[in-house]
Amino acid sequence: MPEATKPRRLTPKGQATKNRIIEAATALIAQRGVAGTGIEDVRAAAGVSGSQLYHYFASKQALIRAVITRQADSALDPGLPRITALDSFEALRAWADAAIERQRENGCRGGCDLGTLAGELSGTDEESRTDLANGFLRWKDLILNGLRAMRERDELRADADLDELAFALLSAHQGGTLLSQTVLDVQPLEASMNATLAYIRSFATDQRQPVR
Amino acid sequence: MPEATKPRRLTPKGQATKNRIIEAATALIAQRGVAGTGIEDVRAAAGVSGSQLYHYFASKQALIRAVITRQADSALDPGLPRITALDSFEALRAWADAAIERQRENGCRGGCDLGTLAGELSGTDEESRTDLANGFLRWKDLILNGLRAMRERDELRADADLDELAFALLSAHQGGTLLSQTVLDVQPLEASMNATLAYIRSFATDQRQPVR
Repeated sequence: MPEATKPRRLTPKGQATKNRIIEAATALIAQRGVAGTGIEDVRAAAGVSGSQLYHYFASKQALIRAVITRQADSALDPGLPRITALDSFEALRAWADAAIERQRENGCRGGCDLGTLAGELSGTDEESRTDLANGFLRWKDLILNGLRAMRERDELRADADLDELAFALLSAHQGGTLLSQTVLDVQPLEASMNATLAYIRSFATDQRQPVR
Repeated sequence: MPEATKPRRLTPKGQATKNRIIEAATALIAQRGVAGTGIEDVRAAAGVSGSQLYHYFASKQALIRAVITRQADSALDPGLPRITALDSFEALRAWADAAIERQRENGCRGGCDLGTLAGELSGTDEESRTDLANGFLRWKDLILNGLRAMRERDELRADADLDELAFALLSAHQGGTLLSQTVLDVQPLEASMNATLAYIRSFATDQRQPVR
C-alpha cells in the first residue's frame, strides 16, 4: 500500500498491538462467525484496553475489513512454504495438495477464510462484499498470471480461455472447501481440484506429461 | 418423509400457516443472514401470533432446520421447469444454464441458498452443519444417479470416476455461485460450470457430440 493512503505510520510496537487485535478477531470469528463476535470479546482476547482497540479500529466494520484484507493476503498460501507463482502444472498441483492437506489437518473444520466470510457477509453487508470481491479478484489474477506465463512458454495451447480456467479453478477451490467443511471430509475438495486441474491439463501442448 | 417420523399430521390450513412462516424466515434470512434474523421479525413478517409460531417451531433452531430442508429440497431446481433427472449431457447443460440465468436475473444478489447458509452456519452451529451436509449429499447423489444412468447407457466411459465428477460439479456450482454473488457478475459461475461440464464430456463415449 502506498504510504500516502495509510492513515498514520505505526511504531513497531503499535504494529504488533494492531496485529494482535486482528489475530484475536480472526480466531474468534473462526469459532463464532462475524455476527457472534463482539468487539468487547476481541478486546478481552487480545488483552488490550478499549481505548487501545479504538485507537486502531474505529468500529467493528473497520476491524472486519482488516480481517478480510489479512485473509485475502494469506489465503492463496495455505500454510505451507510460500507459493509465489502458480505458473506450472507442478506449482498448481502443489497448491491444490497444500489446500487439501490443510483441510485434512484441521479435520475440515473451517476457519475464518475468505469463502466463509463471503458466505456470511456478501449478501448482507455491502462494504464487506466489496472488500471480499477485491480479495477474490486478486486471487483470480494470481492464477491468471500463472496461466498466462504458461501460455507464453507454449505450455498451454493458444485456444485455452485463461479467464475461464482461472475462475473455474478458484470456484473449485472455494466450492470444494465449502462442501468439505460442511460434510467434514476432504473428498469434495480433492474431487473439485483434481477435476479442474485435469481440465486445465487437457490444454497442455505436451500431452505426454503425467496426468495427475 | 415417512409419516411415522412426523410429529403430527397438519390440517391443510395448518400446513399453509407453517409454510408461510418458513417463507417469511427464508426471505428475511436472504436479506439479513441467520444471525440478523430474530424470531419476532419472522412472526411479524408472517403475520402470525407468537403462540401460533411456537406451535409449529419450538425454537429458532427448529425454524432454521425447516429453512435448510426447504432449500435443500428446492435448490437443484433453480426456479425453472422442474428437472427431475440430470441423466444426459443436455439435462446437465440445461441445469447449469438455469442456475446461471437465475443469478443473472437476480443481479447475482444472493439469497438464502444452501451455500450461503453453509458459509454462515457450518463452522459455528453443529446441528445446522449436519442438516446442511445431508442436503448437499442428497444433491450429490442426484447428480451421481444421473451420471450412473449415463454410464449404464454407455454414454460415459467405464473409467470415469463418477463420485469425483459428481462432487466436482456440485463444488463448481457452489463455488461459482459464491464468487458470482460476491463479485456481482455471472462470469465465475459460467466459467466453473462450463469447465466442469466440458471435463465430464471428455469422458463421453461419443466424442462427436457438440462440445458446449
